[in-house]
Amino acid sequence: MKQRAVSAQVRWEQHTQRPLFALAALFAVAYAVPIVRPDASGEVRWWCDVVEWGVWGAFALDYVVRLALTDRRREFVRTRWLDLVAVLLPMIQPLRLLRVVATLLLVGQRARMASQIKLTTYVGGAVVGLLMFGSLAVLSVERKAPGGNIHTLDDAVWWSFTTMTTVGYGDHAPTTGLGRMIAVGLMLSGIALLGVVTANIAAWFIARFEKDDAEERRQTAAITELAEEVRLLRAEVLALRASGSAVPEQRR
Amino acid sequence: MKQRAVSAQVRWEQHTQRPLFALAALFAVAYAVPIVRPDASGEVRWWCDVVEWGVWGAFALDYVVRLALTDRRREFVRTRWLDLVAVLLPMIQPLRLLRVVATLLLVGQRARMASQIKLTTYVGGAVVGLLMFGSLAVLSVERKAPGGNIHTLDDAVWWSFTTMTTVGYGDHAPTTGLGRMIAVGLMLSGIALLGVVTANIAAWFIARFEKDDAEERRQTAAITELAEEVRLLRAEVLALRASGSAVPEQRR
Amino acid sequence: MKQRAVSAQVRWEQHTQRPLFALAALFAVAYAVPIVRPDASGEVRWWCDVVEWGVWGAFALDYVVRLALTDRRREFVRTRWLDLVAVLLPMIQPLRLLRVVATLLLVGQRARMASQIKLTTYVGGAVVGLLMFGSLAVLSVERKAPGGNIHTLDDAVWWSFTTMTTVGYGDHAPTTGLGRMIAVGLMLSGIALLGVVTANIAAWFIARFEKDDAEERRQTAAITELAEEVRLLRAEVLALRASGSAVPEQRR
Amino acid sequence: MKQRAVSAQVRWEQHTQRPLFALAALFAVAYAVPIVRPDASGEVRWWCDVVEWGVWGAFALDYVVRLALTDRRREFVRTRWLDLVAVLLPMIQPLRLLRVVATLLLVGQRARMASQIKLTTYVGGAVVGLLMFGSLAVLSVERKAPGGNIHTLDDAVWWSFTTMTTVGYGDHAPTTGLGRMIAVGLMLSGIALLGVVTANIAAWFIARFEKDDAEERRQTAAITELAEEVRLLRAEVLALRASGSAVPEQRR
Repeated sequence: MKQRAVSAQVRWEQHTQRPLFALAALFAVAYAVPIVRPDASGEVRWWCDVVEWGVWGAFALDYVVRLALTDRRREFVRTRWLDLVAVLLPMIQPLRLLRVVATLLLVGQRARMASQIKLTTYVGGAVVGLLMFGSLAVLSVERKAPGGNIHTLDDAVWWSFTTMTTVGYGDHAPTTGLGRMIAVGLMLSGIALLGVVTANIAAWFIARFEKDDAEERRQTAAITELAEEVRLLRAEVLALRASGSAVPEQRR
Repeated sequence: MKQRAVSAQVRWEQHTQRPLFALAALFAVAYAVPIVRPDASGEVRWWCDVVEWGVWGAFALDYVVRLALTDRRREFVRTRWLDLVAVLLPMIQPLRLLRVVATLLLVGQRARMASQIKLTTYVGGAVVGLLMFGSLAVLSVERKAPGGNIHTLDDAVWWSFTTMTTVGYGDHAPTTGLGRMIAVGLMLSGIALLGVVTANIAAWFIARFEKDDAEERRQTAAITELAEEVRLLRAEVLALRASGSAVPEQRR
Repeated sequence: MKQRAVSAQVRWEQHTQRPLFALAALFAVAYAVPIVRPDASGEVRWWCDVVEWGVWGAFALDYVVRLALTDRRREFVRTRWLDLVAVLLPMIQPLRLLRVVATLLLVGQRARMASQIKLTTYVGGAVVGLLMFGSLAVLSVERKAPGGNIHTLDDAVWWSFTTMTTVGYGDHAPTTGLGRMIAVGLMLSGIALLGVVTANIAAWFIARFEKDDAEERRQTAAITELAEEVRLLRAEVLALRASGSAVPEQRR
Repeated sequence: MKQRAVSAQVRWEQHTQRPLFALAALFAVAYAVPIVRPDASGEVRWWCDVVEWGVWGAFALDYVVRLALTDRRREFVRTRWLDLVAVLLPMIQPLRLLRVVATLLLVGQRARMASQIKLTTYVGGAVVGLLMFGSLAVLSVERKAPGGNIHTLDDAVWWSFTTMTTVGYGDHAPTTGLGRMIAVGLMLSGIALLGVVTANIAAWFIARFEKDDAEERRQTAAITELAEEVRLLRAEVLALRASGSAVPEQRR
């Protein structure tokens, strides 16, 4: 309802959606390149850094513009306080990991508000995004670790999958403090999301079969039958009233 | 509703059901033999290959015939696009694993449409099928791997169970890229399905005990009571109308 | 309803309940002793064997008596076919493990029918029973195994817990074929049951807090309001009828 | 309802809430210090012990005062029997672990009764508390163990997370009997609670998207429509009655 009224904000959100998602894809590439190719030249790394700062800046700018266009600024800031943190944090502490998490938060929040995007698309996208980010982040941290066992992208992706499904073979696991913090973040968000995905797969299998919610159906059937009953009753009363008002007229 | 109208398609599906499932069982044997007995003679392997191609061909033919018999061809292709992929893919890329996955998809899709098959039968069959296929596929890939730890069928089946229940001891786990891809496929579909099975086992344990959905019951009771009330009311009004129409007649 | 009519069967079930559960406890001891103390004397082992056969025999006899007392014998056999298997199997194949599983099935089935036992008691008892049986059975099989890693009762119980919660550290895991078959049985039934237990613990934590089923409450409120409305309406119509029949009397 | 009547008890509970929670935080510090710093001086250890006994005593006193203030003493003791155990147990057996578990129970019970605390706060707090307690308790037990693999607080916290999410890599796991007993307690309560947390994260992701409970909505819509129908009908009958009573007056 609010979105229809504040048309300037809505128009901005609709027009900037595609460019921003293109920037998000660019960000993913810029984040992946220095991790997948650790022997990349200094120039390549510099460009990746520029792209990362640029994309974060674009999303931060988008937040500021939307804040300027909205009528209810207090509510906007209050309900999107995590976005505000994501806009301010990289300014205070320019750690690469913080900047990446901040951009992920801004992209995810923006995607959730895009009314064209459906739940399945969003959850699927979030799972793929978390898998990619988790694998790359853990790889970048654990590759250098002395006793680590995650050395290739292959291992890192495999580790992400076994973690998010809670299978947890333990053939690969982070050993550094930072790697484990990333792992805990991936567990809490990833397990929840992949749970939604597996539940959907189960539902897809079951889809064409009869559901067992017999109780609910009996309810609905009872209500429908009852409504029919009441409709008949009303017709009855209407007929009664017609005959009732006809009687006095006959008498005159 | 559609199925009753398109009787030619339905009749085809009913008559071909049993032969196709017999072919599916034959396919499972032909897929298992060269993996369980890697020292089988070339002739045996050749026959297994012929059976695999033949069964896939029979299911592809079944798809084409059903497409020819249906009235709504566009809808048929659109809702069963995965079947179309499973029919076309082995023609383009004749990899064994692709052909097997394609046949599994066609068998599973066909079983889901057979109206005689109940949900529990289907899910149970799918779990057994996935366990068998996952064990054999991982065994065939991992047996040759240098650092692999899945060398016997026993190990492979045990690994499938610990994976699909998400227990994941890690005493056996795939190490090759292809083995891990198969494992991810098994995880996503298998965990979802075995979740349905364990949920059913839990329900079977609970079955004879009272359910706690008191709220729903109170609702149904309230509606039933209400319907009784309305029925009484209607009888009342009917009686009223009868006496009302009797009054004018008495007066004449 | 059937139970009230067939009073002979019900009386038998009520009177034999306590002795049978005492026998089940005795059976558990007789099963545990030779596994926990593998150096027990031959005489002790012989007595344990006698007790096991005796308890199984008592439950088999109970099945036969209940079958004799019931009116609907076909239905009794059909719905309790698993009990029949549990009664017949140890006669055909006197393997110790089969006899134990058979007795477990008979005890579980009997406990489920005892109307005094509540769901939470039953599920709790079944979890404890499965944990105990699983630990002992795996210990008896794996202790002798050459490459095994479950050598003490402590390890076996710990393994059962990590398996039934699906944590699966993998520090202890069965390595023999028979041990893995027991493990799969424990996984499928134990995970399902312990899932019920953890769900109950979660509910116990939440218990005193408001539930979120606002939708359902609004429904019930709507129905109650509606019933009140209909009750008022009925009073209205009754009054109308009274005044309607009063009118002709006044006119006379 | 009862709480509004028994105002003395409620006033006590409201006034003591903040001091008690401050004491609970102090307890956590006093419990952590000797485990995190095993080389702390004897004096520090003595003070920590004093604080622990003091906080437990404060909660025990709170229980006694609330019992004295309540009207229904029997019901109070019956419904809070676990609190009574937590008050009496450390007097009989002054083991440190027992005292800690007893204090945790009293804190948790007190927090659940504080009407200001919402479910999410409570569950979140309980998860953090269990993680902290589980990590510290396992660390204190396992650090001394000969074959143990949990030697630092870092490892212990990581182990708690992999256990409560049921991922269970197995890179760290308790090996002593006492450590495993703590682990089982953490599994049963922690898995249940973290399941609630992950379910909430999943719901937070999904939050702004449409829910699929179409059936329930259709029900509510049906009931609302039906109520409208009945309201119209009642108006009809009222009008009928008015015209019915108007007729005799016209005739006079």
